[in-house]
Amino acid sequence: MSSPLPLIVDALEYPEPDRRWFEEWRQGNVSCVHVTIAVWETARETLDRIGLWRRKLRENADLVRLSTTGADIHKNAAEGLTTVIFGFQNTAPIEHDIELIETFRQLGVCVMQLTYNLQNYIGSGYWEAEDTGISSRFGKLAIEEMNRVGVLIDLSHCGERTTREAIDLSSRPVAITHSNPREYHAKVGFGEKRLKETEAIRALAERGGMFGLCPNRFMMENGVQTTLEQFCDLVAWTADLIGARSIGLGTDYCPGHPPSVRTWWRYAKWSRESAPHTTQAPHEGWQDWLRNPSDLNNIRDGLLRRGFSTQEADMIMGKNWARFFTESFRPQDAGLAEMPAQAERVAS
Amino acid sequence: MSSPLPLIVDALEYPEPDRRWFEEWRQGNVSCVHVTIAVWETARETLDRIGLWRRKLRENADLVRLSTTGADIHKNAAEGLTTVIFGFQNTAPIEHDIELIETFRQLGVCVMQLTYNLQNYIGSGYWEAEDTGISSRFGKLAIEEMNRVGVLIDLSHCGERTTREAIDLSSRPVAITHSNPREYHAKVGFGEKRLKETEAIRALAERGGMFGLCPNRFMMENGVQTTLEQFCDLVAWTADLIGARSIGLGTDYCPGHPPSVRTWWRYAKWSRESAPHTTQAPHEGWQDWLRNPSDLNNIRDGLLRRGFSTQEADMIMGKNWARFFTESFRPQDAGLAEMPAQAERVAS
Repeated sequence: MSSPLPLIVDALEYPEPDRRWFEEWRQGNVSCVHVTIAVWETARETLDRIGLWRRKLRENADLVRLSTTGADIHKNAAEGLTTVIFGFQNTAPIEHDIELIETFRQLGVCVMQLTYNLQNYIGSGYWEAEDTGISSRFGKLAIEEMNRVGVLIDLSHCGERTTREAIDLSSRPVAITHSNPREYHAKVGFGEKRLKETEAIRALAERGGMFGLCPNRFMMENGVQTTLEQFCDLVAWTADLIGARSIGLGTDYCPGHPPSVRTWWRYAKWSRESAPHTTQAPHEGWQDWLRNPSDLNNIRDGLLRRGFSTQEADMIMGKNWARFFTESFRPQDAGLAEMPAQAERVAS
Repeated sequence: MSSPLPLIVDALEYPEPDRRWFEEWRQGNVSCVHVTIAVWETARETLDRIGLWRRKLRENADLVRLSTTGADIHKNAAEGLTTVIFGFQNTAPIEHDIELIETFRQLGVCVMQLTYNLQNYIGSGYWEAEDTGISSRFGKLAIEEMNRVGVLIDLSHCGERTTREAIDLSSRPVAITHSNPREYHAKVGFGEKRLKETEAIRALAERGGMFGLCPNRFMMENGVQTTLEQFCDLVAWTADLIGARSIGLGTDYCPGHPPSVRTWWRYAKWSRESAPHTTQAPHEGWQDWLRNPSDLNNIRDGLLRRGFSTQEADMIMGKNWARFFTESFRPQDAGLAEMPAQAERVAS
């Protein structure tokens, strides 16, 4: 069975789990979305987020279905369902407990970003003055464990040294789900350190990893003025660097949260600062060719006009992520082989 | 009111809260003990430890009394009571929550060691291959907050860079409650990195901090063969370096735990390693002049024989720590002035 339409995969969104956003996915024939379900939450608090997400997926089973394999994206799409992948944008949920990596994997979490913006037990985020890398004993063990159980390592918000060292230390390909190349344009709303160095992008791709280009207005030099053509130029530049096979999309679309959540993403409980970086709601004020994920197919049109082949455009729009997720979520350990079955039981 | 006997203060023990160990303190006229109540525990788990300790202190109110000021050591001693100070040997309990520092201070925790053996959100322990220092935003804010609320910063298990940087960053004097000078003898059971560099010891003392010398057999070159005279030579060497006023004792006596706890101290949940560094029970196999804290007064005799004046010996045995605790536990923030009253209400 195959999907009647080309796959569209968004490798990073952070919506509140609500039918409104699931409906946007269906309007745009979005086949699969990797959603962030926790960032600063402790293990206990993360259990609440998983419970909420599972309930919302169950209540909207006509639109969405959880996957822990990536392999069922085509099948779900053929049934008119968007496949949902659970991920963390930080390792706060695993605290300093090596066993929690497998435990959360059993609960369906297939992607873990090693750090959010700050230093944690594993590495350092892009917002620290000094990135201390994967220097801790726990950091090295945690990467090994993610490799073993089939948790895809995401480095999007990590600092330069942490990004480089994680690419080297991981025995399996890793991902940058939502960033852009710093060499192409450094002056973006989130700041140049949020963008990735050419050498890191090259090393990632050489080891089989995936780079998710980000059409978010805070991640492009011209902000909301960025045209579709300009974004497609950025895709072409990156394809020249590492090839179309290593590229996908990650919008960083984060709808449905109250304004206080944006302050919390930035300052959590570690600081008493309260100023968010913007007062604009995360799902508003996008460029007119990408008002929300239901417009994602516009990018495919843009890529074809820019000279990408149909095959290349389809790879970038979704086939690459679908293949990569399928490979990455497979446990190395035969004893963990039953894990993929969990997702379907939950979603049905 | 003053104590009929010289003060004896032990700046670091980690007993299970049990009457047996409280009785040893009374046998030795130990006036005050800073006890570790948590090391790897999360905030929630730490609440359990606090609950257990408070119950045990209440049940043994004829022997022990909690203090959050240090100022009542003399008064308690005159009543035949050993003053107990609560401390953490890690900042795992505060997770990445700046507000938890004041919250645990309200619950009586007056000392926090910034790191145990490994890297955490604040700094790095001596057991990491690379000490990344106090490089994180949260680390700097946490030190400021401990200064504000009257939590004494302990650096005993921190790595070299973290130790140096914390001494510099803290606006109030800090402590090393249980270590020894590396320059004096580096080959000890716990390894030379557990000992402190001369420059750090000097900087600590220049800023008004205290150094707790450790007569634990794993912290001295000759181990259990170390004589009282050899330990007093070490005290004299350190007094020549920084003066008798900056020196105290911290035994690192940790009785009452099952063997599994020692594995947990070392490997917690961050690793699956299980080998403890020794199979010897932490409260057994000490040298004959210090079988347990009830023998602490032997050190006073040794210091007098070594040529220390009575005044100096009494300072090293307890007066220094009593003065330093009193200064260090005082909140800087006037709004927190009611905090010291908490302890007496609990203990009575």
